[in-house]
Amino acid sequence: MNALLLTVLICCCGLVALSFAWMRTRWVSGLEPGTDRMVEIADYIARGARAFLRREYKVLSVFVLCVAALLAAANWTQNGDVESSPLVGVSFLVGALCSGGAGFIGMKVATRANVRTTNAARTGLAPALNVAFSGGLVMGLSVVGLGVLGLGTLFLTYDHLFTSWSAERVVNTIAGFSLGASSIALFARVGGGIYTKAADVGADLAGKVYEGIPEDDPRNPATIADNVGDNVGDVAGMGADLFESFVGSIIGTMVLGTGFIAAFAGMDLPAGAISAVLLPLVLAGVGILVSVGGSYFVRVREGGNPQKALNTGEFGASLIMAGLSWFIIDWMLPGSWEAVTPIVGAAEYTSAGVFLAVLTGLVAGVLIGLVTEYYTSTSTRPTLAIAEQSVTGAATNIISGLGVGMYSAGFPALILALAIIGSYHFAELYGIAIAAVGMLSVTGIQLAVDAYGPISDNAGGIAEMAKLPPEVRQRTDKLDAVGNTTAAIGKGFAIGSAALTALALFAAFMQQAGLESIDVAQPRILAGLLLGAVLPYVFSAMAMSAVGRASADMIREVGRQFAEIAGLREGTAKAEYAKCVDISTAAAIREMIAPGLMAMLVPVAIGFIDKNMLGGLLVGVTVSGVLFAIFQSNAGGAWDNAKKRIESGLQLDRRKFGVQASGQSHEIGKGSEAHKAAVVGDTVGDPFKDTSGPSLNILIKLIAVVALVIAPLL
Amino acid sequence: MNALLLTVLICCCGLVALSFAWMRTRWVSGLEPGTDRMVEIADYIARGARAFLRREYKVLSVFVLCVAALLAAANWTQNGDVESSPLVGVSFLVGALCSGGAGFIGMKVATRANVRTTNAARTGLAPALNVAFSGGLVMGLSVVGLGVLGLGTLFLTYDHLFTSWSAERVVNTIAGFSLGASSIALFARVGGGIYTKAADVGADLAGKVYEGIPEDDPRNPATIADNVGDNVGDVAGMGADLFESFVGSIIGTMVLGTGFIAAFAGMDLPAGAISAVLLPLVLAGVGILVSVGGSYFVRVREGGNPQKALNTGEFGASLIMAGLSWFIIDWMLPGSWEAVTPIVGAAEYTSAGVFLAVLTGLVAGVLIGLVTEYYTSTSTRPTLAIAEQSVTGAATNIISGLGVGMYSAGFPALILALAIIGSYHFAELYGIAIAAVGMLSVTGIQLAVDAYGPISDNAGGIAEMAKLPPEVRQRTDKLDAVGNTTAAIGKGFAIGSAALTALALFAAFMQQAGLESIDVAQPRILAGLLLGAVLPYVFSAMAMSAVGRASADMIREVGRQFAEIAGLREGTAKAEYAKCVDISTAAAIREMIAPGLMAMLVPVAIGFIDKNMLGGLLVGVTVSGVLFAIFQSNAGGAWDNAKKRIESGLQLDRRKFGVQASGQSHEIGKGSEAHKAAVVGDTVGDPFKDTSGPSLNILIKLIAVVALVIAPLL
Repeated sequence: MNALLLTVLICCCGLVALSFAWMRTRWVSGLEPGTDRMVEIADYIARGARAFLRREYKVLSVFVLCVAALLAAANWTQNGDVESSPLVGVSFLVGALCSGGAGFIGMKVATRANVRTTNAARTGLAPALNVAFSGGLVMGLSVVGLGVLGLGTLFLTYDHLFTSWSAERVVNTIAGFSLGASSIALFARVGGGIYTKAADVGADLAGKVYEGIPEDDPRNPATIADNVGDNVGDVAGMGADLFESFVGSIIGTMVLGTGFIAAFAGMDLPAGAISAVLLPLVLAGVGILVSVGGSYFVRVREGGNPQKALNTGEFGASLIMAGLSWFIIDWMLPGSWEAVTPIVGAAEYTSAGVFLAVLTGLVAGVLIGLVTEYYTSTSTRPTLAIAEQSVTGAATNIISGLGVGMYSAGFPALILALAIIGSYHFAELYGIAIAAVGMLSVTGIQLAVDAYGPISDNAGGIAEMAKLPPEVRQRTDKLDAVGNTTAAIGKGFAIGSAALTALALFAAFMQQAGLESIDVAQPRILAGLLLGAVLPYVFSAMAMSAVGRASADMIREVGRQFAEIAGLREGTAKAEYAKCVDISTAAAIREMIAPGLMAMLVPVAIGFIDKNMLGGLLVGVTVSGVLFAIFQSNAGGAWDNAKKRIESGLQLDRRKFGVQASGQSHEIGKGSEAHKAAVVGDTVGDPFKDTSGPSLNILIKLIAVVALVIAPLL
Repeated sequence: MNALLLTVLICCCGLVALSFAWMRTRWVSGLEPGTDRMVEIADYIARGARAFLRREYKVLSVFVLCVAALLAAANWTQNGDVESSPLVGVSFLVGALCSGGAGFIGMKVATRANVRTTNAARTGLAPALNVAFSGGLVMGLSVVGLGVLGLGTLFLTYDHLFTSWSAERVVNTIAGFSLGASSIALFARVGGGIYTKAADVGADLAGKVYEGIPEDDPRNPATIADNVGDNVGDVAGMGADLFESFVGSIIGTMVLGTGFIAAFAGMDLPAGAISAVLLPLVLAGVGILVSVGGSYFVRVREGGNPQKALNTGEFGASLIMAGLSWFIIDWMLPGSWEAVTPIVGAAEYTSAGVFLAVLTGLVAGVLIGLVTEYYTSTSTRPTLAIAEQSVTGAATNIISGLGVGMYSAGFPALILALAIIGSYHFAELYGIAIAAVGMLSVTGIQLAVDAYGPISDNAGGIAEMAKLPPEVRQRTDKLDAVGNTTAAIGKGFAIGSAALTALALFAAFMQQAGLESIDVAQPRILAGLLLGAVLPYVFSAMAMSAVGRASADMIREVGRQFAEIAGLREGTAKAEYAKCVDISTAAAIREMIAPGLMAMLVPVAIGFIDKNMLGGLLVGVTVSGVLFAIFQSNAGGAWDNAKKRIESGLQLDRRKFGVQASGQSHEIGKGSEAHKAAVVGDTVGDPFKDTSGPSLNILIKLIAVVALVIAPLL
């Protein structure tokens, strides 16, 4: 075995993922889409989603070309003295294309799977699960497939085309791929997030303002935009997010792996001196095969337990991957070695240590997921407390939800702190980076479980609009609920891996920028830390107020249609859905520019002022961003499920609510005052959990990768 | 002039402040309290406030004695090898007593000034302003007087009783004073904050639940508790907060000033080698005289502009103090000197640099104040946006307010970052510390303006309950509104000074613990940073949910009284106010324990694990805490004023709200749906801006001072 053959094999794993994704897409597309009405609705949604992505990509293509040119030019003039190359612009282009491609494929198959899930739900739960999961799996496999194929191909090209290049130079040049992926991801997450929540909040409130029209009612002109939002925000946006984490953690580890080249020289290792550089790619490649295998366990017979099927698939894949990692690491790396790396200095490493670091990452991911689950599940104390506080109105519901969100950051911070100390203890900085890779190695199947939620949600919306019998909606609702536990674990991995990936990139940045330490007792570094820490606040504020403005536009448009289209309220005339889709699209594209540019330009500006200050900024944005993201995501999730808990009928404790509820019933449910209060909380939580919260995951990685890419220029 | 004489003079300044406070108290107490009904209500409030403080101090006295004994014991066994002494326990006791004393005096005079302000408002605006401001001034002068007198006396005692002690040892031993002040401040702020908001939210919501009873109605049993809350939370709590900042910044600077002793040895300076140590005390002493002088400018004749009077007093005092600082620094320090200090190493200093650092602090404080004013004032864009978003309901009001709060952290972070870089540039670490002292030198008059707000608020409540003619309430409302701009500036100083004080204490801790750098690329330090950054989240969550629980208790009690007391609703029977006061008291005392202990124990635990990790924790809690505090305080302030804006009648822009409001009026005001939504926002903002937000200011200083005090033991 040599490095060339190994890289080719890695690329083959990427191709395997894409072939499977293609097969599943064919299978989904071949299914029956249902009644004419269903086809019509699905067509509206698919066209809306396509139109949005097309406009978004048009804007982004200008941006991508400019940045690619800038990167090439900046590295051109500096070429010679530093370990970089103008080809970093090409890597950037390829990364942007792969990220955009993954989002596009995910959206495409999701808008086919949604209506087919509805149709399958007409016959039973099991077939509906299979369709929705397949839709999600296509997304998951496209993400990991394009990621591994893209990185592998670039490595192959640069390493074997330019034989004079050092491995450092190859890896530095590939880092542009990660930047391309990150910048597309940020715009996709922010734009998609604004789109989906503007439509959601708009449809919801417009329904309230023009009374009697619920958000899923076909008479509500914003309803199609709301459904389009699920596809472009929750599916395509999430795909771009995990694509970025996946690629970022691999690149970060590759950069740090170059530190072992001198130590490995002459050793008999599968990929020679660059074994530690290729290790993350090998783990990712094997992870693809495990994900594909795991997907076959997600089968459920009628009457079987779909929750169990999903858990078997995801946890099974994770466990198998953990086991395989041991053998891969043992095979790829020597049993023990000494190395002198730029930041850590001289240290001893063992392959067992590297494996334990991977394990630390996996365990931390699962633990953070369990904490997330505890704070947001419909069956635990925190959501019960929020539901109970809804009895005294919206204000106490909000106070309680904000409190739950803040509390929920505590344990994840502790777990991350221990994971950092632990993985560093096992394999220094390389350990932190490889822990992130470990967390993300089975992204393929994790993302399938994540994406299957919004597909089921969409399927329910279609059932409602097409006026199918209520049991169809019940089945899709159950499908949606079933994935929640597994999805919570997935969220834990997303947040944990974002933090570790950012730290891996941060360490890689320090190495490439030649920084030995980041001493926060230095005023400039402290100032950088403070500025970094405030970025998530300003960024979230931008996203939140964008949703506010865009949903106000939407409400006005709905009002206009009701005022001007005769017969719309009575259901005899058709709403102009396309207008609402246009409004969401225009708002999302307009509003994503400012936060996106801020995220790109601030690190560049600070970096050219003082690279140490940029180091402070990175630490600040990572720490503050992770906590602010957990706070927002979990508060949003808890509000959502507190509302669901009331909707399913909540019996109040008579001892606690004895006097107060004397005149009232002790059961609160849909339509009660408490429910109205809970709906307010849910609406506040929408942009928290679907726009600003998850965007912060990307923000911290993007800023870190910007720093890494500009490091050779500083 | 020598150090002894100078210290005696400083103590005299403290005595001057206390004498003036005593004279003003006598003057206020001698005024006519008004009708029998007013006297009765004021008596209820005063008794409730006394009862709370008595119970709170009883619990705290146990805690204080235990900690004092522990400190003495810990420093006993270590005595000999380190620069400390068991007398640190005595300093702690004195600090706790002074802090508690300042809070008690402030509460006492506030509960006398409130009803006399109401009575004065029956004749006009000007006399009411004079009474309310005098009440605030007593608080302000007590705080600075006890601070300067306490520190001065301790210095005098230790320095001249134990002539063998080094100045380092004297200052280390005095640091206990700051810890005593901080721990009392934390409990007072948290306990008072929970008290006031439990009563406020409880009274408000109970009024809603048992319809038709507004929160200021004498039939509402929680109304007295609500008014007690203003005195124990907003007055006594704020006093304790600024006492802590004032004392902390002075101690931090004194510690760093010991670094110049070697350089100053033999120079002909007013206080000899310890001139830089005594400089902050001298500035504080002169600041007292300036504050007393400034208070004479706060006079308004009938028909005059009270806003102008307050501004003249506060800004006049700040400007004069800035000017005097130049002469004081020029007199106390040499024109230029070189010194080798533990963290900075060798550096050159100039007295002009020290003065510029002070000026940087002052300017930063004013700028942060102006930003605060912009984001929370009733006449600027952000509150207008929140008010407009209230038209579509409580959810959009909340989203918008959260967005404003997040945005509002941006510029203060930038200003602080520049202030850190600037003051360090002018005089290294000593510059950062002295900048905080500069910000706080006229605390006496600033605090007077701050405390005058809640006194006016209370006066309005009494007017309502005593059924005085409406123009009395209008005058007290105007009084309250008038102080808002000036109070916003004061808040800027409070936040800015908390950050700089924490940094000064942090630098002092590094010096005493022998840390040369805090390298966040080290995993333990990074983990410490992460844990520090999450503390404000957990702490705020504790405070928020305590308010939630306590207000639920209150609502239940109000319900019980309405159910069991015949004739209460009709106004023929009296409510049992004392029961509600008891509930708030019990809840506040019960709920303040856990967050208070967490704040004390976490730094101790981490410190004994690894002092470098404690360094990371300090940086994390400071940066995250400042931003989270600004976010919460400003969101709360903006919601409050958005509501006020709607209450004063808001004309909606017809272009923006054309279609939507077709069936509705374009004017929204009290009682409209938008107003109801704004009330929800205001209620959510209550614990944000009055409980958890301001408590964070104390949290960050307390953790820093805990670290400083335990530094010799690590």
